[in-house]
Amino acid sequence: MIKKILIANRGEIAVRIVRACAEMGIRSVAVYTDADRYALHVKRADESYNIGSDPLAGYLNARQLVNLAVETGCDALHPGYGFLSENAELADICAQRGIKFIGPEAEVIRRMGDKTEARRSMIAAGVPVTPGTEGNLADLGEALKEAERVGYPIMLKATSGGGGRGIRRCNSREELEQAWPRVISEATKAFGSADVFLEKCIVNPKHIEAQILADSHGNTVHLFERDCSIQRRNQKLIEIAPSPQLTPEQRAYIGDLSVRAAQAVGYENAGTVEFLLAEGEVYFMEMNTRVQVEHTITEQITGIDIVREQIRIASGLPLSVKQEDIHHTGFAIQFRVNAEDPKNNFFPSFGKITRYYAPGGPGVRVDTAIYTGYTIPPYYDSMCLKLIVWALTWEEALDRGLRALDDMRLQGVKTTTPYYQEILRNPEFRSGVFNTSFVDSHPELLQYSVKRKPEELALAIATAIAAHAGL
Amino acid sequence: MIKKILIANRGEIAVRIVRACAEMGIRSVAVYTDADRYALHVKRADESYNIGSDPLAGYLNARQLVNLAVETGCDALHPGYGFLSENAELADICAQRGIKFIGPEAEVIRRMGDKTEARRSMIAAGVPVTPGTEGNLADLGEALKEAERVGYPIMLKATSGGGGRGIRRCNSREELEQAWPRVISEATKAFGSADVFLEKCIVNPKHIEAQILADSHGNTVHLFERDCSIQRRNQKLIEIAPSPQLTPEQRAYIGDLSVRAAQAVGYENAGTVEFLLAEGEVYFMEMNTRVQVEHTITEQITGIDIVREQIRIASGLPLSVKQEDIHHTGFAIQFRVNAEDPKNNFFPSFGKITRYYAPGGPGVRVDTAIYTGYTIPPYYDSMCLKLIVWALTWEEALDRGLRALDDMRLQGVKTTTPYYQEILRNPEFRSGVFNTSFVDSHPELLQYSVKRKPEELALAIATAIAAHAGL
Repeated sequence: MIKKILIANRGEIAVRIVRACAEMGIRSVAVYTDADRYALHVKRADESYNIGSDPLAGYLNARQLVNLAVETGCDALHPGYGFLSENAELADICAQRGIKFIGPEAEVIRRMGDKTEARRSMIAAGVPVTPGTEGNLADLGEALKEAERVGYPIMLKATSGGGGRGIRRCNSREELEQAWPRVISEATKAFGSADVFLEKCIVNPKHIEAQILADSHGNTVHLFERDCSIQRRNQKLIEIAPSPQLTPEQRAYIGDLSVRAAQAVGYENAGTVEFLLAEGEVYFMEMNTRVQVEHTITEQITGIDIVREQIRIASGLPLSVKQEDIHHTGFAIQFRVNAEDPKNNFFPSFGKITRYYAPGGPGVRVDTAIYTGYTIPPYYDSMCLKLIVWALTWEEALDRGLRALDDMRLQGVKTTTPYYQEILRNPEFRSGVFNTSFVDSHPELLQYSVKRKPEELALAIATAIAAHAGL
Repeated sequence: MIKKILIANRGEIAVRIVRACAEMGIRSVAVYTDADRYALHVKRADESYNIGSDPLAGYLNARQLVNLAVETGCDALHPGYGFLSENAELADICAQRGIKFIGPEAEVIRRMGDKTEARRSMIAAGVPVTPGTEGNLADLGEALKEAERVGYPIMLKATSGGGGRGIRRCNSREELEQAWPRVISEATKAFGSADVFLEKCIVNPKHIEAQILADSHGNTVHLFERDCSIQRRNQKLIEIAPSPQLTPEQRAYIGDLSVRAAQAVGYENAGTVEFLLAEGEVYFMEMNTRVQVEHTITEQITGIDIVREQIRIASGLPLSVKQEDIHHTGFAIQFRVNAEDPKNNFFPSFGKITRYYAPGGPGVRVDTAIYTGYTIPPYYDSMCLKLIVWALTWEEALDRGLRALDDMRLQGVKTTTPYYQEILRNPEFRSGVFNTSFVDSHPELLQYSVKRKPEELALAIATAIAAHAGL
């Protein structure tokens, strides 16, 4: 069994991993750059080490991270999500230095990270993929030819892309000609590779993804799906498990497909198979070879602790559950509370949290690394809190979401909270029937007026009176 | 459907009810005495009204509370637990004034509140009761005769008692002679009635209670049991659902008994049937005709929102679930975090909360009314927070409890937290096999040394250095 884990990440996911370690009797080691000196993951871990003054470089230096793991007596490394979590080289270096990488083999990360290679693997395994090119495109000429074959609109995609970046929709030959140099340039800058390919654009699909777990004893299971259709510019905002829109047959089909996909590539550890759904058809999109931001909602409906399973798998233990014992109950919704101003084009709103009070009571879970007095640094992701609600029925989960968002106090920065409250009141959202076009097709949901909480109002009034009275 | 509820209570249970109202679209009205001016339930309710300068009187004045409900346009009143929650007169006044009392009929409260009457009802319904007197005792002479009949040790009990008060164990004729005037005096002072009775003392029993729900359409269900054996001086400290010690047969038997008990008295709304278990026998102890402090753990294992069901029942709606659809999953443990110093005989430690940070992450629920800067008033119960953890297995729930208690930051007052951490590490507790003698038979668990959190330690060191340097 693993005894000590270096957590090569920061923020709420680092805190999440510290918690799993604490519950399993495993020692946790945090890392932080100067900007994260006062971060919660540093306070909560058993040990913590400074990895440099640059806010980002330390979190992206695979060799230094693995060296530190070796030096501090760790036997494993958890990469979290983002940063180096899907970097095959980190997994390679870990293997070379005798540190167990908590994730799949480097070879599998590489294969699924290369989107054209992933497509080929899925086609071979009988998993349906979006019509598109077989491999990377040689040049614009080939791109134009292939686009004609599959039919516009098409998506031009960076082969090494992910997380909604390095991707552009082209509705016509002209748009493809314009997009070509831009995507190549973006891909080179962001992912260090100029490889691109194209796929038919599935118009207004649902984004459905299945959580899988696979151990080293040949067991692969799925934990049902998540509906991540509520996105803005390919960034997920609200995630739901299970999807309120799927039939039990669709659910079982997608679960089976995801297990087949994982088995086809010899997958081990936790992973997510992402699909697009449109007009009754299911298309493989990509596989994420790490824990997802939204793993929480799957935990809420199944009771299975995914990070714990990740660590068990990496320790060589079998899965703690069999497929026939995995059930889902109720509905869970996760709100990514981002420090952004929705009314100002979701512009980041970094700064000091002057007051934070967690919502509580039945069916409420919070995963966050913020606290009163914490300053959100401008160098990282703007997501500052994950609020997860659960209830037996979809209706009750919606109402609980509204209550919990209202219950929370988070002052000092602007957040996406009031926007989510508008979404929760929207009849289309409440019907459970929506797709990835929801956010763009409801600009009116941004026309909210922020209702001040009574205590904020009292303070504002008192301040105004004091000013008027010359106090 | 009920539209507006006056919450005749304070603290965490008032906040709990506000939350249920918010989720159901019901307007909530809080009440507070001067001492509670800054209480969280006041901040969170839709409206709030001052009910006097005496810290307690306002919460105990049934007529004034119902008047206020009428004046503020409420159509229902929720009594919470404690205070007037089992006061039949409050239910009567509500009925007279057209306010729906969220609880059973006054007649049922009266019947179950009178312990000798409750025993008679249970005997008639075929529910096993502890051997004891049929009615109230006329005098000490009768008490001595009855005690000989059932055999020492016996429990001398106030007929109107409850919550562990007005009760004394007598091991011999001499002890009964001594206890007689004291219990009569206590009963008169605390409950306004000198009626007492006696029962055989069940030595070192388990305390097991079943949650029931009954609607006005004739449906009565149970939500399985809670194990409340971890008590100190008859006050519950840690509660568990389901009991890790019961067999499925015992579970089903106790569930059936509790439904039979509720049906026998025409019970409506949420209630709890308490039993003692010893040497394979089950004895009815009492029925609590209100929501319990520990209803939370039943919610965690069944997914059913008990306060929501209470409001639905009072609105005349049928139960939202049938017995065959009620299942339990995993284990939930509730820790009553009390502002007390366990090392100083659990002496109350009231005062200002200088820092509070809620634990979070998977399987953690918090119900509390405290916040940073809140001063715990000395007039009420010392319970300041309920931490509830849930996990699929008993082992994992124990480890999650340790982690979550450690995760929590609560400074400014002494609490029972470190004592609970010792209990969680105790092999007997971890085995799941224990009874109500656990706390008394493990005085060594009080010999903990409080480990300072790193940030507290840093502050203490900085302060010491500053003092040394004359800063």
